[in-house]
Amino acid sequence: MIYNFNSGPSVLPKEVFEQASKAILDFNNTGLSILEIGHRTPLFQAVLDEAIAHVKELMKLDDQHEVLFLHGGASTQFFQIPMNLLNENEMAAYTDTGVFATKAIKEAGTFGHVEVVYNGKPSSFRELSKNIQVPKTAKYLHLTSNNTIEGTQWHDFTQFYNSGVPLVCDMSSDILSRVMDFNKFDLIYAGAQKNIGAAGVNMVIVNKDILGKVDRKIPGMMDYRQHIENGSMLNTPPVFAIYVCMLTLRWLKELGGIPAIEKLNDEKADLMYSTLDSLPLFKGSVPKEDRSKMNATFTIDNPELEKAFLDICKNNGMVGVKGHRLSGGFRISMYNAMPLAGVQAITELMKDFAKKNG
Amino acid sequence: MIYNFNSGPSVLPKEVFEQASKAILDFNNTGLSILEIGHRTPLFQAVLDEAIAHVKELMKLDDQHEVLFLHGGASTQFFQIPMNLLNENEMAAYTDTGVFATKAIKEAGTFGHVEVVYNGKPSSFRELSKNIQVPKTAKYLHLTSNNTIEGTQWHDFTQFYNSGVPLVCDMSSDILSRVMDFNKFDLIYAGAQKNIGAAGVNMVIVNKDILGKVDRKIPGMMDYRQHIENGSMLNTPPVFAIYVCMLTLRWLKELGGIPAIEKLNDEKADLMYSTLDSLPLFKGSVPKEDRSKMNATFTIDNPELEKAFLDICKNNGMVGVKGHRLSGGFRISMYNAMPLAGVQAITELMKDFAKKNG
Repeated sequence: MIYNFNSGPSVLPKEVFEQASKAILDFNNTGLSILEIGHRTPLFQAVLDEAIAHVKELMKLDDQHEVLFLHGGASTQFFQIPMNLLNENEMAAYTDTGVFATKAIKEAGTFGHVEVVYNGKPSSFRELSKNIQVPKTAKYLHLTSNNTIEGTQWHDFTQFYNSGVPLVCDMSSDILSRVMDFNKFDLIYAGAQKNIGAAGVNMVIVNKDILGKVDRKIPGMMDYRQHIENGSMLNTPPVFAIYVCMLTLRWLKELGGIPAIEKLNDEKADLMYSTLDSLPLFKGSVPKEDRSKMNATFTIDNPELEKAFLDICKNNGMVGVKGHRLSGGFRISMYNAMPLAGVQAITELMKDFAKKNG
Repeated sequence: MIYNFNSGPSVLPKEVFEQASKAILDFNNTGLSILEIGHRTPLFQAVLDEAIAHVKELMKLDDQHEVLFLHGGASTQFFQIPMNLLNENEMAAYTDTGVFATKAIKEAGTFGHVEVVYNGKPSSFRELSKNIQVPKTAKYLHLTSNNTIEGTQWHDFTQFYNSGVPLVCDMSSDILSRVMDFNKFDLIYAGAQKNIGAAGVNMVIVNKDILGKVDRKIPGMMDYRQHIENGSMLNTPPVFAIYVCMLTLRWLKELGGIPAIEKLNDEKADLMYSTLDSLPLFKGSVPKEDRSKMNATFTIDNPELEKAFLDICKNNGMVGVKGHRLSGGFRISMYNAMPLAGVQAITELMKDFAKKNG
């Protein structure tokens, strides 16, 4: 048995792999591959419509919020957002909570003024804050709900909901993982390759009211309004990637939706962190209150033992345990499709390793 | 037997479907799906490296030319190209040879001056020209080598090679289909979903010398130099789409490369157009010298018979025969992966239909 703890691209449900594999040979008994069907056929339109309907239902979105499947990954959103929302003489507030948040800040600076309202660099991005002041003049506040590399996650958005400015949130690594009031956000974006589907497509949920207020000319492919008008088909969309999203969303719905997956995610995270806290050999990288339920990061204060544990993981079919190249240590990603059995298996290995080396 | 004449996404080799389907369940005997492997693993790096090596070998590219696999489709290139190559006070020359060329012109106008050196609109884009004058002051000349919707294709690039300005070419619908001196171009781009692979990735081949000469700040994801520095891994690439490209490129190489596929493409086009010219019922939409070997466009001067022929195609397993929604009539796309048998089958249907209705 292999368990894939990769941070993204990452594990997807077995049913999704099976159905996607079949559709490449014969999509819906058409005799055609999903890879060769035209994007403007009723065949693909049904796929896209179903994907959007699942998102709206799962996230309980109101009619003001449009769901788009776009090219480019979350990194494209880093500049597409200020390009669409921020005039040169205006200011946007950003929270600098990790490597990806820093990249978003850098791109925004090309389009307008950026005020960093929380700087996590002094804690090496291992801590968040409950006392962030957001100037009312900010055109929007940009958040990263879960910091994949560092292993932190916002668990309470009250301070942001009360900020009085439009909220923009990169939810790439925890979207669809927990119950939230998604309608409180004016723009949500997420690369698909963690909880939505496979790499190669990006989901954007946008409140139509915030668009059309900047002066600059926006290239067609970067203009959310054009994508809305064209129903995510302004050009040839990433057909297969959207199909995999649809299958994954369908799986989540059949499982019981976000409340059901949240319960499972809580179980996995509880098991992982209670194990971590019970074993002095392993050091959690993040204070308890800011720990991510998607990505658990920890270390061993001994490079030889770190290497030995990685080897043991590898020999036992545990893939993707090594921490990000920028931060080292270990990272166990426990996205929606990771079964509880995977976390049970790795925590057993941890206990066993601690016993022998503690 | 189904034959898929879709204009893109379009048919791919049967072997590619089979291998892609298998890799979704078990990629290279790893026990992991190609959809869940990390993009920074040696497993995926080998896929990307092989894809790039095939492109360089098949197209005989020199060391100045870099091969990139990018997000966004050709439509993103419509603005990314002028963003990287054209200052606001500079001029680029464009040939307006079809619907997609017109879109490219529109996007370029946001970044600098555009001079349309050939306007195909008076002929409804059904004709090209041998006498195009390109001002030496043009920063570059933009061409569309094959016009997918209209069914025209440039067969002689001498006038452009002699223009003395850098050449930029949208080869989305005929790349890898015929022997050309690709090193004469400074930037070539192509959406993958015709001759390279499946929808969801875009190939860009760029001469490094033309980069870094504009004043504006370019967002990271739009900067070719950053993609070159990061080996097409500036962010999470569309892993599966690149894998399908690699498989398709490998298939082409094993087939004998571009000279071998050109011979097959010539045979298919000869059969299609000689059939068309022998049947007065069908009217070719394009003069002989400008006809595309990838997309044959034609009509019947009778809406009822057009509908009847479409019905017969459908009943005989011929998919994607209907012309583009903007131009009507019929369009038979004969990309690299379309076997000769497919063109034989549809031309037999045409002959039969003409006999009964001529």
